[in-house]
Amino acid sequence: MTMYEMTDMQYQAVYNVLSFALASMMATTVYLWFRSFAVQDKYRSAVLISGLVTFIAAYHYFRIFNSWVEAYSYPAGKLVDGAMVVEGPKLTGVPFNDAYRYMDWLLTVPLLLIEILLVMNLDAETYSEKAKALGLSSALMIVSGYYGELTVSGNLAPRWICWFVSMLFFVYICKELLIGLAAATESESDAEIKGKIRLAQVMTVISWCTYPVVYLFPMFGITAAQAVVGIQIGYCVSDIISKCGVGLVIYQITYAKSSKGALLG
Amino acid sequence: MTMYEMTDMQYQAVYNVLSFALASMMATTVYLWFRSFAVQDKYRSAVLISGLVTFIAAYHYFRIFNSWVEAYSYPAGKLVDGAMVVEGPKLTGVPFNDAYRYMDWLLTVPLLLIEILLVMNLDAETYSEKAKALGLSSALMIVSGYYGELTVSGNLAPRWICWFVSMLFFVYICKELLIGLAAATESESDAEIKGKIRLAQVMTVISWCTYPVVYLFPMFGITAAQAVVGIQIGYCVSDIISKCGVGLVIYQITYAKSSKGALLG
Repeated sequence: MTMYEMTDMQYQAVYNVLSFALASMMATTVYLWFRSFAVQDKYRSAVLISGLVTFIAAYHYFRIFNSWVEAYSYPAGKLVDGAMVVEGPKLTGVPFNDAYRYMDWLLTVPLLLIEILLVMNLDAETYSEKAKALGLSSALMIVSGYYGELTVSGNLAPRWICWFVSMLFFVYICKELLIGLAAATESESDAEIKGKIRLAQVMTVISWCTYPVVYLFPMFGITAAQAVVGIQIGYCVSDIISKCGVGLVIYQITYAKSSKGALLG
Repeated sequence: MTMYEMTDMQYQAVYNVLSFALASMMATTVYLWFRSFAVQDKYRSAVLISGLVTFIAAYHYFRIFNSWVEAYSYPAGKLVDGAMVVEGPKLTGVPFNDAYRYMDWLLTVPLLLIEILLVMNLDAETYSEKAKALGLSSALMIVSGYYGELTVSGNLAPRWICWFVSMLFFVYICKELLIGLAAATESESDAEIKGKIRLAQVMTVISWCTYPVVYLFPMFGITAAQAVVGIQIGYCVSDIISKCGVGLVIYQITYAKSSKGALLG
């Protein structure tokens, strides 16, 4: 793999964004775990799992942040009149391990899909069928992407093949979220709840669109320091929307269903 | 013990898999501990213990991961036009301590067997008898395996003897899980619960099969870097199935028994 020199500003930008994502994940985790007790028992698992997703992501952001810090080091500065102009960080030789993200996704993406299924109007059989199909295809989508990442050197053909295989599963999952599950979404009697379930589905699909685009960067020769900064910011924004954002919407859905269920009961 | 040079890719593969196993153990622990409150009091211990197993494993994976990181270090790379191709990691001289795994198993394997017994239809006397027999034989199986690991140098005879002793206990435990406990499994009136208990037993036996096979690798001269990568991935997969997987099945069994018990009561 190739590592790039960063200006002080570029290095700090990635550092701050990774730290921001870590803080967002930790805070969302605590909120969701505490609030899992505020919803009816049958929805508690969904809120708990939403918190598990951000918990797992927090762990990986902690590792990614540390890996970023280990990849660069600041040279001793030179004092001029009692002040020191900071020089840009230098590469240490330790590679920045971004592949942690794949380990994260392998756990969190199936859980994210399951947390959406758990708050929908699905009978046990449909739930189990959809959970298996979506869980398996999301795992295959990520494994295929990771395999493509491993083939880093010169020849980009395997990376293209992996991208296409991955995209097959990607398109299938998006289709299921937007169309396959539409009937179940429409069957919600409460307009507010129906709107929020649709919101969770759409947020997931839109925030996911970053990943296949970023994956193509090396194919278009976008590999400089500037690109690394852009990729890290893009990944962080997508992760915050799809994990913290969707997790909080899931909580709102279960909370609304719990209060309305209580009124009916 | 002997340590091997790794390519960047091999080193990162083990690094990522160990981290993945750690994240899986932590997430499962949290889920099981939270959900232990969702089952009837008489089943709570089983779910709690399932979470203890993954908790103990998470601790050991944390140590194993750190040991892996300490065993290798990256040399300072050479910059060409602001970019640096990362060189493979070098051995530091610190051995990778894999024997943590035996300490882990010594605690978790008896607990794993007990968590299965706890959710079965056994009278107090049978339970106590089976728990003692399985707990003791699993401890002896691991101690014998560990003793064989300590005799690493040239002469492989003691390692073979330890393997055979260990396998005696291994076969006894598998026989108990699949045959000795079959009558109790069959006595479950609910088909779904019966199926899940059988699943937990079969998952345990199948995932365990990795261990005696990996143990034989040095006897067949399989000792290169490639083998180390394979062994670590194999151990991680087996641990995730037998600890996270079986733990979650145990929770499902207790949850099903609790809801059905409530209906009957």
